[in-house]
Amino acid sequence: MKYISFQYQGRAGFGCVDGEHVIDLTGVADCIDLKSYLQSAVWGETEHFSVCPRLLHAEVVQQPVIPNPEKILCVGLNYESHRLETGMPEMEHPVLFTRFASTQIAHGAPIVRPHVSEKLDFEGELAVIIGRTGRHIKAADADAYIAGYSCYNDASIRDWQMHTRQFTAGKNFDSTGAFGPWLVTPDEMTGLPNRTVTTRLNGEVVQHAPFSDLIFDVPALIEYISTFCTLQPGDVIVTGTPGGVGVVRKPRLYMKPGDEIAVEIEGIGVLSNPIQQER
Amino acid sequence: MKYISFQYQGRAGFGCVDGEHVIDLTGVADCIDLKSYLQSAVWGETEHFSVCPRLLHAEVVQQPVIPNPEKILCVGLNYESHRLETGMPEMEHPVLFTRFASTQIAHGAPIVRPHVSEKLDFEGELAVIIGRTGRHIKAADADAYIAGYSCYNDASIRDWQMHTRQFTAGKNFDSTGAFGPWLVTPDEMTGLPNRTVTTRLNGEVVQHAPFSDLIFDVPALIEYISTFCTLQPGDVIVTGTPGGVGVVRKPRLYMKPGDEIAVEIEGIGVLSNPIQQER
Repeated sequence: MKYISFQYQGRAGFGCVDGEHVIDLTGVADCIDLKSYLQSAVWGETEHFSVCPRLLHAEVVQQPVIPNPEKILCVGLNYESHRLETGMPEMEHPVLFTRFASTQIAHGAPIVRPHVSEKLDFEGELAVIIGRTGRHIKAADADAYIAGYSCYNDASIRDWQMHTRQFTAGKNFDSTGAFGPWLVTPDEMTGLPNRTVTTRLNGEVVQHAPFSDLIFDVPALIEYISTFCTLQPGDVIVTGTPGGVGVVRKPRLYMKPGDEIAVEIEGIGVLSNPIQQER
Repeated sequence: MKYISFQYQGRAGFGCVDGEHVIDLTGVADCIDLKSYLQSAVWGETEHFSVCPRLLHAEVVQQPVIPNPEKILCVGLNYESHRLETGMPEMEHPVLFTRFASTQIAHGAPIVRPHVSEKLDFEGELAVIIGRTGRHIKAADADAYIAGYSCYNDASIRDWQMHTRQFTAGKNFDSTGAFGPWLVTPDEMTGLPNRTVTTRLNGEVVQHAPFSDLIFDVPALIEYISTFCTLQPGDVIVTGTPGGVGVVRKPRLYMKPGDEIAVEIEGIGVLSNPIQQER
């Protein structure tokens, strides 16, 4: 199943994609958004779908998959290819930084290049959406806490990322966290390690790797993170980007207004965003 | 004026402290929480206070000043005394990391020492609460965006903070971000640089510094942060801690169950929390 968050005729909603339609689930079990639906008693059931309105997918405006996560945890240097290209040492623990929900944009919305820098780089990634509250989750039990997967473009302003050792500034420019196009449930993502993420800039492949290359896989990340904080439904773990980012290329390859950047994951689909200059 | 967030008879609310009473402002101008009240048309006015219920302060359970900030930005190494004691290089830009709202606790609530570490350290700090939406705010205009000030204890799990270069894990353990006791409006905090923050562990002073020692002062922080993201009412900037933290003392001085840690700021008052072992 594929779930989206959307705006329709000026109101926020969420639903399940069904071909050219979206089954509008807004209000089912009193849920106001996809985040609350994930923790409702009816999550995973489809009996109620038949009594819900059907909207044309083309008539809704997509929003970030989860527009309002309580937590977005991003993983740095989680592919050997990316660690080596950046010259960073091997890590015993996952490198974690965070993104504010307010920096997120939807599939199709512009990634904004700010006035203060032209060093806007792409990072195609697998996003994991948490479906269940948990702390001290063991890796072996982690699958039960996953609601689904999506594509993420953790677009980064490289000079601001390197202002200090903490990545916060360069990872939190407004309109740089692209999250979409939808949440795909785990039953459609079996054999995850053999699936791949591919990033294309103006149609040309710039990143490509299988998830078997992840240094810390999804269960290991869930175990580590839930050791310090309680994971909640709607929380997002952005699992890291493979080699090929623009900042280490020779010559460097940054995104500029007019470009189109796409992140494709087998079994999910394509998250695509144009680049726009800050007004 | 002093504003608090609270729980009263099982419901969440907020109000203005008036001696032994709290003027219950919940619902005024349709505001459900202090964050929404900060951006309402009646913020700063007091005419409506006379028609609001008065609760006994002793009968409300205080919550973190803003329980649900969209953003909590913490500043590292922002006092020369702390930078020198940690041996970190001089910084051209503020060192920023973040805290999830879910890690916050109220004045009086226990800071929890986790199973996985005994390296629980204190960090007494000045918190700034944003009152107005803004991007690209100049330092000279920053005062207009400040709703008020409070005390913060950015309690840190030092070994987890140093797992990688990113501080995220060690700064985001559940029940470690103490925020209180209340928001004090800027008119009561004139001459901020000459005021001081003092941290006491079991009554003994362990940190003490004037805000004139801040490397990046509050207006400079607001200018820098708003260059990359839009500040919103209720956002919190935790401005950094002075020298004296436990991790660099000889011998080291960590907080342990049964301890009491207090952060006092002239003009605000005392934020005090007991230490409790994770159950």
